[in-house]
This record gives sequence, C-alpha cells and structure tokens, in this order.
Amino acid sequence: MARLGAGLDRALDDLHDLDDLDDLDLRAVTRSPVLEYLGRLLDEYRELDEGEVATYIPELGRADPGWFGICVVTADGHVYEVGDTDLEFTIQSISKPLVFGMALEDQGRDAVLQRVGVEPSGNPFNSIVVDDRNRPFNPMVNAGAIVATGLINARDDDERMARIVDSLSRYAGRHLELDETVYRSESATGDRNRAIAHLMRSFDMLRGDVDSVIDAYFRQCSFLVTCRDLATMAATLANRGTNPITGERALEPRYVENVLSVMSTCGMYDYAGEWVYTVGLPAKSGVAGGVVAVLPGQLGIGVFSPPLDARGNSARGIKVCQRLAADFDLHPLRFQPEVRNIVRRSYHCSQTRSNRVRTPEEYDLLTGHADSVVVFELQGDLFFGSTERLFRGVVDDIAGVDAVVLDCKRIGNLDGAALSMLSSLRVALDDVGCVLVVADAPTGVLEDVAARSFTDADGALEWCENRILAQFGSPAESLPEDLGIQELLGGLTAEELALVERSAIVRRVPAGEVVFREGDHADAIYFVLSGLVSVRLPLVGEGRDRRLATLGPGVAVGEMAFLDEGRRSADVVAERDSTLARLSLDDLREIGRAAPRVTATFSANLARNLSGRLRRANEQVRLLAH
Amino acid sequence: MARLGAGLDRALDDLHDLDDLDDLDLRAVTRSPVLEYLGRLLDEYRELDEGEVATYIPELGRADPGWFGICVVTADGHVYEVGDTDLEFTIQSISKPLVFGMALEDQGRDAVLQRVGVEPSGNPFNSIVVDDRNRPFNPMVNAGAIVATGLINARDDDERMARIVDSLSRYAGRHLELDETVYRSESATGDRNRAIAHLMRSFDMLRGDVDSVIDAYFRQCSFLVTCRDLATMAATLANRGTNPITGERALEPRYVENVLSVMSTCGMYDYAGEWVYTVGLPAKSGVAGGVVAVLPGQLGIGVFSPPLDARGNSARGIKVCQRLAADFDLHPLRFQPEVRNIVRRSYHCSQTRSNRVRTPEEYDLLTGHADSVVVFELQGDLFFGSTERLFRGVVDDIAGVDAVVLDCKRIGNLDGAALSMLSSLRVALDDVGCVLVVADAPTGVLEDVAARSFTDADGALEWCENRILAQFGSPAESLPEDLGIQELLGGLTAEELALVERSAIVRRVPAGEVVFREGDHADAIYFVLSGLVSVRLPLVGEGRDRRLATLGPGVAVGEMAFLDEGRRSADVVAERDSTLARLSLDDLREIGRAAPRVTATFSANLARNLSGRLRRANEQVRLLAH
Repeated sequence: MARLGAGLDRALDDLHDLDDLDDLDLRAVTRSPVLEYLGRLLDEYRELDEGEVATYIPELGRADPGWFGICVVTADGHVYEVGDTDLEFTIQSISKPLVFGMALEDQGRDAVLQRVGVEPSGNPFNSIVVDDRNRPFNPMVNAGAIVATGLINARDDDERMARIVDSLSRYAGRHLELDETVYRSESATGDRNRAIAHLMRSFDMLRGDVDSVIDAYFRQCSFLVTCRDLATMAATLANRGTNPITGERALEPRYVENVLSVMSTCGMYDYAGEWVYTVGLPAKSGVAGGVVAVLPGQLGIGVFSPPLDARGNSARGIKVCQRLAADFDLHPLRFQPEVRNIVRRSYHCSQTRSNRVRTPEEYDLLTGHADSVVVFELQGDLFFGSTERLFRGVVDDIAGVDAVVLDCKRIGNLDGAALSMLSSLRVALDDVGCVLVVADAPTGVLEDVAARSFTDADGALEWCENRILAQFGSPAESLPEDLGIQELLGGLTAEELALVERSAIVRRVPAGEVVFREGDHADAIYFVLSGLVSVRLPLVGEGRDRRLATLGPGVAVGEMAFLDEGRRSADVVAERDSTLARLSLDDLREIGRAAPRVTATFSANLARNLSGRLRRANEQVRLLAH
Repeated sequence: MARLGAGLDRALDDLHDLDDLDDLDLRAVTRSPVLEYLGRLLDEYRELDEGEVATYIPELGRADPGWFGICVVTADGHVYEVGDTDLEFTIQSISKPLVFGMALEDQGRDAVLQRVGVEPSGNPFNSIVVDDRNRPFNPMVNAGAIVATGLINARDDDERMARIVDSLSRYAGRHLELDETVYRSESATGDRNRAIAHLMRSFDMLRGDVDSVIDAYFRQCSFLVTCRDLATMAATLANRGTNPITGERALEPRYVENVLSVMSTCGMYDYAGEWVYTVGLPAKSGVAGGVVAVLPGQLGIGVFSPPLDARGNSARGIKVCQRLAADFDLHPLRFQPEVRNIVRRSYHCSQTRSNRVRTPEEYDLLTGHADSVVVFELQGDLFFGSTERLFRGVVDDIAGVDAVVLDCKRIGNLDGAALSMLSSLRVALDDVGCVLVVADAPTGVLEDVAARSFTDADGALEWCENRILAQFGSPAESLPEDLGIQELLGGLTAEELALVERSAIVRRVPAGEVVFREGDHADAIYFVLSGLVSVRLPLVGEGRDRRLATLGPGVAVGEMAFLDEGRRSADVVAERDSTLARLSLDDLREIGRAAPRVTATFSANLARNLSGRLRRANEQVRLLAH
C-alpha cells in the first residue's frame, strides 16, 4: 500500500465532516473529492510568496501575482477546475510542443530530427548554442521552436497562421484569439529571437523567409488561453491526440509520443531530470505563468499563476504539479499496460454452445468432441507484449484442438507488431492442422489473418460445431420428415403418435418467411421437420434484431405456450426452406382428454428438455461468472 | 494501423516458407516468431563493423569484437535468446542503476536526492563537474555512482559487499561471481575515480571511508554476468522489482520508477534525449559491451557486443535496441493504463440473483425492487485515474439505488490514491442513504471503506436481497408449515393434496445435518416446510465445497429425480434447523396411478418452474456474455 497523500487525506477528512447540506441537493450534485482536494491545494499555495512576474514586456508585467487557477481534465473529458480558470493570458512557450507536433505531421519524424535535436541543452531557453550536428538542441528552446515553425507547410504567411490557429484551437476546443498588444510588444522587443533566426539562416539551419517565420513565432506565442484551455490541451495529448471534450483530432496519434518525449526531457527548461524524477509528467511552462502537464491515458493538468521562479517556470505551477503527482501517485512509469489480462477468459465448446439448438443426439456428438474447439475472449489493446503472451498461451495448450476462435469484441487498439504476431499464430496453427477463426474483429484488420471471420462469437461457434458434426456424421442429416423423431413426443406409442399426426398441420415455409411474431397470440407448437428456423428478438428502435437461437429438424419451437399461454416473446423466421408441423394447443388438449398419457408424456418430456437446457445454461453461467 | 517493421516481416515471411519440418515435432515445439526475428536481427547486425573494444585495462581489450548475443525476457519470465547469451563479461556501469536502487531503499528518496542529482550532465561519464547544489549530476556518472555506493547501509566493508552481491544476484536470479583480474586491474588503474572520490570527500559530498567506498565501487563493476543475466535484470525492473523467473524481490516497487527515471534521462551517457525520442526505453550500457533496456510491465532486453561507439555505448547494442523498439512499437509513452475498462460490467439485481432460491412471491418482490441494488464488477489496477472514473460512474447513476456492491475479485494493485477515492465514495453514498458493500476484496484493505464486506459476490447479493425482503415484508416469513404453499403442488385439489400429505413423511432436520449426499440413490423429493437448506458441490481433493443454492420454505429440493432417476448430483445440507416433507418417487407414482391428474399437474408445475429458472439463467447468460 502506498502512503496517502497528506493533502488528499485532509481534504477528505474535511469532506467527511461536512453534514450541514441538504440530502436532496446532494443526490443531485454529489460533492467531488477531486474538486475539494483542488480547492484545498489552491488555498494552500495561494499563500506561497515566491517568484516574480515576467517584466520583459510591459503587458506581462501588468499581471496580478495573485491570479491563480488549477484545472484537471480527464482523458474522457471531465473537467475539474478551481480558482481563476477563466482568465485569459498568453500561451507563450506552451505553444512550442504543439507547433512541434505540426512540424512532425508535415515533415515526418526523420526530416524534423535533421533540423532540430531532442537533447536537453542545459542552456537558457534563449540560447543560440547548437549541437554537433548544427541543430538547435531541442524544439523547446527558442531557436528550436523557430525552426519548428519554419517547418510547417504553407504557401504564404496567411496560410501558416491559419493552420497554427486551427491546430491550437483544436487542442483547446474553442477558437483562440490573438492578443495584439502582446504580439506587437514581443515583435518590437524581439531582437534576440530575430538575431537567432538570422544566424540560423546564415548557417542554413533555417530555410524560407526569416521575417515571415519569426513573425509567425511571435504570433503563436501571443494566443490568449485560459487555465481550462491548458488542461484541455494537456488532456488532448493524454487522449492520444483527440480532444476528449469535442472529439476532434488535434494531432496524429503516432506523433503524440514524440511530443511527450521532448516535453519529458526538455519541457521544464534546465530542470528536466529532477522533473522526470519527482513529477515524471511530460510538461511545458510559459512565461505568462501557465503550466501544462500530461499523464498519458489518464488526464491533463493546467495551472496558471504568473510569478516565475529563477528558472522561468511558474513557482506555484511547479509546486501544484509536484503535489498532484505525489498525492495522486501520478508518475507515468508507475503505470503498466494490461498484459496479464489480454485473455478475458477462454473456454471449450463443452462450456459454451452457439445459439443453434441441437437434437439430443447432436448434443451428445458435440459433447464428445467439445474440447476440439477453444475460444479465447480477448480484451484491451493488442500490442507486442500482450500478443506475445497470447501467442504462447494459445500454442502451449492446443493438444487435441482443431479450431481456435479469437473473440475480438472487446479489443481496443491493434498495432503492427500485434498483427505480425497474429499472422505467425495462424502459421503456427496451420502447421499442426488447427484452424484460426476470428469473431467480431475491427473491419478490414484481421480478415487476412484468420481462416474464417465472423461478425460475432455465436456465428463462429456455430460454424465450429457444424464442422464437428459434418466430420463425425450428423444424425440430423438423415432424419426422416416425421414426428417420430421429435424430442418432445418421445415415448409415445404408435397409436398416441398417430393421434398427434392427425391433428398436426404440415406447412412448407420458404426461407425468410415469418412463422410468428413477437406479441402474437401463442396458440400452437411448431415441430421442425426439415430446414432451419431462428428465434429473433426485434431490438426496439434499432430496426434490427438479435438472433436468440436457431433450430433444425427434431426440435420444437413455441413450445413454452403449453406452460404459459399468452403472447409470443420473440419472432420465429425460416432461415432456409423448411417444413413445420403445427399443433394447436386446443388440439393437444383435445387429444389429452381422450388419451391422458399423451399430455403427461409431453409434460414430462418438456420438463426433461427444460432441465437439460437449464443445466447447459447453468454451466454457462458458472463459466461466464467464474 | 501502424506500419509493420520490415525486419519482423522478413522474419515472418521466412518462417512461412519453412515447411520441411515434421508435423509431430512442430506440435511439440512450435516455432517462435520472436526467436526467429531475434535470430535474423543477430545475423543482420553481426555484419556491422563499427566501434572499438574498450582497452583502458588489458582484460577488456582481450574481448572478441565478434561476440554478440541478444536476449529478451518477458515480465512473466519467458526467455528468448540468440547468439552468445551464455558468455560471461563484467557488468561495469550497468551496476550503477541497481546500486542506486539500494541507496534509495536504505536512505529514502529525499535523502538520496540531497547527495546526488538526477539531471543529465552533458559531460563525460568520468567528469567531476558538479551541479549548483554541490552534487554529482546524476548516479549514472562515476561520481554519482560512487556517492550512491557510499549511501548503502553497512557496518563494514564485508557487509557492504555482501549486500551488493546479494542484490545484484537477486536481479540476475543466480549467484554472481567477481572477476578478480578485472577488479584488480580497475583498482590499479582507477586513479581518476580515486581522485573524484577524494575531491568529493573534501567537499563533504561523500561521507565515510573513501578507500572502502571506492573499493566497493570497483568491485561492483567487476561482477561477471551473461547477456541472459542482463535481460533478466531488465525484466525484474519491468516486473515492478520482482525477478519474474525466481519470484524473488530485488527492489521495492515504489523505487522502481526512480531507477527507471534516471535510466531514461541519464542512462545512455550524453545521448539521453535522442534515446528517449527514438527508443524511449529506460536503459543503461556498460563499457564491456553490455546494454540493458526496460519496457515497464512488458519485457527486459539484454544485448552483449563489445565494440563501443564514440559515446561509449555498445554500437550493436544501440542498433539492436533501436530496431526492437521500432519493429515491435515499444516506446513506453505509447502504452496507456486501462482506465476505460475498470468496470468489467455492472448489473442490477434484476439481472443476476444470488444462489438463494426464492419462492415465486419472493422473486416477485425482489423483481419489484431489483433496481435498488447495483453491482460493479471491477478489474485491473485501482489507481487515481481508474478510481476517479469509477467514482463518477457510480455517483452519476444512483437514483433509486439503495446498495452499491463492488465486486473486487479481479482487481490487481490498489494504491493510496485509489483508497482515498473509495473512502470518498462511501461518504458520498452515505450522504444519499446508499450503502457501500464490497465483495472478494484483498484482505485487510477495504474493510474500513465498506459498510459490509463479503468473501464473494453471491454472499453480497444475498445480503442485499434479504435487506429488500426484510424492508418490504417477505411473504415467506409468515408461511404455514404445510404442503399447500409448495410451488410444485400448486393447482391440486384439496383431495389430491391430501393424497400427497398422507404419503409424505415430515422430518425435523437440525442445522448442519446432511439431507442427502452426492452419489446417493435419488429416490425422493423433499419439500422445505421451514428453515433453510443448501445445495453444495464437494470440490474433489480440496476438502471444501461450493454452495450452488440455498432454499427456504415453499421450495422443493431433489425434484430433478422425477425426470431422471439416478444418483444425486450434489449434497443437500440443512443451514438452519429445518422441517422437510419427504415424498418418495414410488409413492408419487402410486398416487399417479390412482389419480393421474396429480402427476400431470406436478409435471406441468415442474416444467413451469424449470421454464422460469431457464429464463432467469438465460437472462444471466445474456448479461454475463453481453
């Protein structure tokens, strides 16, 4: 057990003491422990009197040192905010990782790496020192950020700025405006950055028009954002590049790790190593007092407090991030992907059947060969570590197995390494005469990998069962089209059966025709003599249905009417051209009056049938709930 | 879809072409695509002719530049190895992160940080430059490593070395031996390191006896390891500090992230930023040609190849790690914890019942209030991000809910932040008059959080059901002790019921007494008149049993005997003092001969009962398999 964060505990103690609120209000608005905690953090660090507001341009110097806001946005878009989270200030250097992401999208990893390094420099942010390959050390120092801005594809200045506005606004989830005053002030006093740009141009480190690029750089730093915007931007990076509130993509997922990498190692000026050690979150600060920090997969943090420490990071911002990381145990290296649980459960065909209803003989046959089909229900992301473990789990235990079904309903992302491992799995299974079947896989992804692909596990199971029955000779194939083979009529004498046959009406039902519908009056039992019918449950408002069961010769449908006359609970539809014998309940009762043993036998058969179905259902429940 | 690594693809193509092997052999030893891939990587980079073997001491200079081994050990202890993975060489600087881990365990995070920094230095590994707080830059440069060695608690030299040997050996999973020749050579030529140590002593950066500490430092670098040892050490770090092969703990889990942090930022000399950017794996190299790299939660990599590049890292080692990272998509920032799937599924009491069998009246009552109990089945690790989402999921949807059950059977780790969030959840639920119940939680962890705690979900559900029945008045409480209320005898006339009553034998069964056992001849049906009995399945060889169901008044047990005379399939035991009416099958048949309507009615009731149970079981299957 990790220790509890002291601040968190205190906030919770306090929360437990509050009981002067109205119960009805509470049911509507449950107090959030996270919000309470953030409020306490805000109060605590409001007292902190460290650092100085930046003054290199007058506009920044006018900031109130008391402004203070904290916002946390989760990777699914829930916003927790306390303090001055609506105040606007300029984004400044926090634009750097985002524009670096644009450069990556436009030029690709390798081309960008040729122009700007990714090493922490140990030099001030406005240094012109370059590395041994004539590159700025990294895109978080001004020189590197200017190069990154120059790498954005655009035909002219307007297009470049339009693209930057669009990108930053996607991260924030709202249209961002420029602070013209700050921009003009930055531009008017930006000699050092101009010098850096021209020097780089002279060394061929920067291409294109220097004035145009440097102007875009000044502008990108002058966009107005709020503390909430910063947290949303961070949450967008935490959510693989998609803004979790708007659902809009701001950055291609494959470049997210690169942006987070440089934020990790170079984001907090020359404080990177200790930051990684104590906080661990990829982060970036801006000279107007903003700080963003990202916990991949979980949340984004935004803090706003103008006074800066000696390194140029928001003094309160640093403290808040350190406390959040400590109190909530947020170090990214603590979180491990779920490799263990990639197989949610696995089962043999003996434990779960398809919804295809079989005759007792077919069930016996399937039971005898049930271990030859094994289903692996997968969950989570498929990547190298999880798929490697899946591979071993499958091939280590395939003695006597003829078919492996991968139920992919619950898988999330699937990368190239996982796909390669699955291709290898197919080959390994082929080698031992075992077929690989996938169910419910993302469209277009696994068709080439599997021998057969089905939209759901039920379809895959039915195919595997049919394969076993075909291989070992299904008794149903050779069944005569008469009532003698019906399970529910078993044990009747020839005379008794003749009574039933005289009352039953045999009907040919073409494929697709509805036998009865949900809600119809339940007045008859249908015995399937040939073909195949299915029981389907219409899904209200969805214009589609769910198949509950399919039934072939020897099996009855609508038999529950005998126990509980009323309305049909589902549709029954012919899947193929079928022959059904319809026996009305009135006729069955009439027969019972003349020959009481017929209904008694029918009842007992039905009870035995239900008992078998109940046993199979209970086995399935035990398996599923294991 | 990510692109496929070219090397991986080629290895797989080749694998697909191999078909001259015997099928039986293949079933026994399925070819591993990972092993094939590593073999190909080995062949490819064997050709690489870059770098020079270290020569500063003669022993290292004698290394064969052609020695080359690659080993991957998964976080569950599976070993993939190709090439010279059994050759011994000296561990050198790869000991540094491990000894740093010992210093953390002995002194704690803060005390260690006072003595040694965690910033990449940008200086050579043997530099004596210190930071502005008079600390070596980090524990991966010699000065920092010497300080870390000095921080190990020991009464004397022998104890210090014994502890270092023990620690390193736990990582490797075997007892490591010193290379005396290398040690003496390092010691004889180690003037620079001695100078560093003495300088640090003069600045009070290093405490204790300099000669003793520096001697331990030379020794720790001279332990003999194999490439497989390195991969095992890395896998131990990947597995939260526990060696996955031996199961022995080498490092406390809470310090693993600190060790990995400095490996990330300082492990590869002055190549840290680009390493994080392109490979991303926390790593460390040694001058004898070893490289370790860690993918947390997934695997450890060891490479051995003596020729070093200009930075002092194994030239082939770097290339192999880069290729592995690219081909298998291994960047750690790509992997996100499973926050989404923390709730495996949730259901109301209407969808899943406890194993307590109820009368139809009780079922009706429970059905009417079933939405007042909601069960959340949790899975994976509970940490801030996942528990925060759970909190919201629960409190956002508790209108009309009186009890929340957290089924903790499948949870893994649970940290302090998660525990705080769960405490808050209890308070939030208390506020709205809703009780928090936990089932199957790790011992001693959640007792204080929950109002009630049960060993399994079934017990929790039964408690919640009983709470509903007690609150709304259970009809069973006031049932008369006669057969008239028996579900299976419903619809019989008074005369017919009298026939049954005359044949039935009423028995008082004290709590704990066995009514019948699995395997007994099934010759009678028992009607429960009062008390409570349970159906239990003995678990063979385990000396315990599993409760399948409990039954109260109005319910029959052993009724399946009517359909399928044979042997009992489970034990039935009185849970409380109970009264049962025993009706033998012979007597039931005898009654049927005199009054055929009795058995017909009984059959129909049984079929209806089974149909209800089947419907509930199917609902549960649908829910469980959703």
